[in-house]
Amino acid sequence: MRAAASVGDRVDAIDTPALVIDLDAMERNLARMAEFARAHHVRLRPHAKMHKSGDIAQLQTAAGAVGVCVQKLSEAEALAARGVADIFISNEVIAESKLARLGVLAQRIRLAVAVDSVLGVDRLAAALKAAGSMADVFVEVDVGQGRCGVAPAAAGALAQQVVSHGLRFAGVQAYHGRAQHLRSAAEREAAVRHAVTAARAAQAAITANGIACPLVTGGGTGTFAFDAASGVYGELQAGSYLFMDADYAANEPTPNAPAFEHALFVKSQVISRGHSHAVVDAGHKSHAIDSGLPRVWGRDLEFANGGDEHGILRPRGDSPPGIGSTVWLVPGHCDPTVNLHEHFIALRGGLLQGTVEAVWAVDARGCAR
Amino acid sequence: MRAAASVGDRVDAIDTPALVIDLDAMERNLARMAEFARAHHVRLRPHAKMHKSGDIAQLQTAAGAVGVCVQKLSEAEALAARGVADIFISNEVIAESKLARLGVLAQRIRLAVAVDSVLGVDRLAAALKAAGSMADVFVEVDVGQGRCGVAPAAAGALAQQVVSHGLRFAGVQAYHGRAQHLRSAAEREAAVRHAVTAARAAQAAITANGIACPLVTGGGTGTFAFDAASGVYGELQAGSYLFMDADYAANEPTPNAPAFEHALFVKSQVISRGHSHAVVDAGHKSHAIDSGLPRVWGRDLEFANGGDEHGILRPRGDSPPGIGSTVWLVPGHCDPTVNLHEHFIALRGGLLQGTVEAVWAVDARGCAR
Repeated sequence: MRAAASVGDRVDAIDTPALVIDLDAMERNLARMAEFARAHHVRLRPHAKMHKSGDIAQLQTAAGAVGVCVQKLSEAEALAARGVADIFISNEVIAESKLARLGVLAQRIRLAVAVDSVLGVDRLAAALKAAGSMADVFVEVDVGQGRCGVAPAAAGALAQQVVSHGLRFAGVQAYHGRAQHLRSAAEREAAVRHAVTAARAAQAAITANGIACPLVTGGGTGTFAFDAASGVYGELQAGSYLFMDADYAANEPTPNAPAFEHALFVKSQVISRGHSHAVVDAGHKSHAIDSGLPRVWGRDLEFANGGDEHGILRPRGDSPPGIGSTVWLVPGHCDPTVNLHEHFIALRGGLLQGTVEAVWAVDARGCAR
Repeated sequence: MRAAASVGDRVDAIDTPALVIDLDAMERNLARMAEFARAHHVRLRPHAKMHKSGDIAQLQTAAGAVGVCVQKLSEAEALAARGVADIFISNEVIAESKLARLGVLAQRIRLAVAVDSVLGVDRLAAALKAAGSMADVFVEVDVGQGRCGVAPAAAGALAQQVVSHGLRFAGVQAYHGRAQHLRSAAEREAAVRHAVTAARAAQAAITANGIACPLVTGGGTGTFAFDAASGVYGELQAGSYLFMDADYAANEPTPNAPAFEHALFVKSQVISRGHSHAVVDAGHKSHAIDSGLPRVWGRDLEFANGGDEHGILRPRGDSPPGIGSTVWLVPGHCDPTVNLHEHFIALRGGLLQGTVEAVWAVDARGCAR
C-alpha cells in the first residue's frame, strides 16, 4: 500500500482517504502535556497503542516521556524494532509462546508487563528464566473498570509471588478506562477518587507484606489532572492528548488542565452528490466508529453512516459541497482509527495551505497479538 | 507482522487473536452459491471488498464467478497484482490522480467502473484516452440505498454521455445495501421489489435513448434469491455468503435460498478472570463492531465490549472459561473485520481438531483509496 502523499507535496495532492496529522497542533499538544507533567512532578509514559509509531514515540521521549505503554507484545516488538527502548505492556500476557518472545525482547530493551493471576506470574517467571532476562512487573488492580486486575486486597499476595520468583516488582497498574469518557468533570473526578482509594488499598496490602511499592501508574487523557492531583499516581499513561478525537472533545473540560487541539484528521473527497446530500469516500474502513461517527471539520454538516467505504453528508448550517471537494473529518476515536491506516501524512502549515513534512509508518498497525 | 500460524500447525498453536477460516465450511458456502447462480442462470461476481484476497478471488472464479467487484481502485490494483483479471470497481472514482492509475490498470486487466455524474464520466473518458485503454462503464442508479447513484430517469442521459465519449456502456449498477440487513424476508423482498422497479425505469430511460442496456448488476447476501427471481438482475454481487457473520445470521432465512454457514472466526484467548467474568484478548482492533459485537461460538456466554483490545465474557447458560482457554468469536460484520488483519489462517478439519492448510494474505487490507 503506497502512502497517500510524499514529503514536499502540497495538501491538495494528498490522495483520499488519508490519515493526516496537523503537525503544528500536535506539537502544541505534545508541549502542553510535557509541561504539565514537569510542573506536577509526575512521570509521563504515553500510551503508544494510540499512535503505534516509532517516530512519534521518539518525539514523546525527546519531550520528556520516560518511555511508552503498549497493550500487546507484538506492539512492543514493532516499536522496539524502531528503537524504542523502554516499553510497558500494560496488559496481561498469558500464552507461553508469547511469553517466550517477551523473554527474548527483554534481553534488549527495558520491558515491563502487568500481571493479575498466579498462572500469569508463574509463566512469566519461567519464560524470563529461560531467556535469562528480567522485566519490571506491575500488579494490575481493578480500580473501577471491571475488566482486568485483581481486587485491591489481593494485590499483596500477588506482589509477594512476583518477589518470591525473583522478579522485579515495579508497582501497581491502576487504569480506569471508563472514567476517561464520563462527560462531566465532576463524574470523572468522582471516578478517580474511587480509583485512588482502590490504589491506596492495594499499596497498603503490598506494604503490609513487607514489599515496597515503587509506583502507581495509570490515568488517561480524560482524568490526568485529577490523577496527578491525587498524589498517588506517580506516572501518567495518557495517549490521546496528542491527537485528540471527537469523543474526548465532547468531555466537559477539566478545571486547571491544559486543553488539547484536534491534530488528527481523515482527509476525504466528495465522490457523489444527491439532491440534498453528498457522499465522501471515507467510511468505517477509514475511521473507527466505536465512539461515534466522525465530525466534519470547519463546515456545519451532519456526517451520517454510509457503510464501510462511504460517508453521507447532510445539510445543517452549510450545504453539502460538490463533487471533487475536500472534506476533513475528525475521527470519533483516534486509537482504532490509526489502526486502520498504514501511514500518517504529517502536514506543516495547516489543513488549507500546508505542505507534507513527513510520512510516518504506523509501525504497529494490526499488532493485536 | 508475522502470521499467527504456519502451514501444518495444529489449531492449538494458532496465536491469538487471529482471523481463522473454517475451510470445510467455506468450501460448502462457495459451492452452494455457485450452484445457485448456475441453476438460476445469473452471473456471479462476488464482492471482494469482503475478503480482499487474491487467493480467495481465484477460488471464486474457479468455481464459476465471472470476476469480482471491489469498492476502491487500490483494491483493484492489489488484486490485479495477484492475478485477478476481471474486476468491477462498483463505485465512483473522481480524483484525477486515481483516474490516471485506473487508465493504466485498464491496460492490463478487464476493468469496469461505476459513474453517477457528468464530471465523473468526463474525467474517466479523459483518463482512459490518455492511457490508451478502455473500461466497461456502469451507470449507478439509486435503487433505494440513498447513497450514490442517479435517479432512474436520469440514467438515460448519463448513458448517452458514456456512449458519446466512446466508452463501453455496460449497464446499470443497482445495489441496495440497506435491503441486505432487513431482518424479515418479507421486508427484504419488498425492498428488492422497489429496487427492481427503479432498475427497470433506468433500463427504460436508457433504451429510450436508443442505447442497449446489456446488464443490471447488484444484489447481496441478504437479497440474492429475490434479485435472481426478478429476472432483471443478470449478475449478483453477493460477497458475505462465503464467510457469513453474526449480522447476516440474524436475518430470517429467505425461502428457497441456500443457507450459509459461519466460516470466519476470530480465535481469542482468556487472559484474565474475575469473579463472574473472563477477559479475552480480542477487542475492536480485532473485530469490527459496526454491525454489533461478536457472538461467542459454541458456548452460551455474553460478549460485552471491553474496548480496543479486550472482550468481556459474562455468564449465561455457561460459566466463563479459565485463564488460557481458547474462545472462538463470530464477527458481527465480516468485511471490516477482515480489513483489520494481515492474514487468514485457513484451517482444515474444524475448530477443535483442525490443522492449518494455508495462510493467505489479506492482499488489499487497508486499500481504501
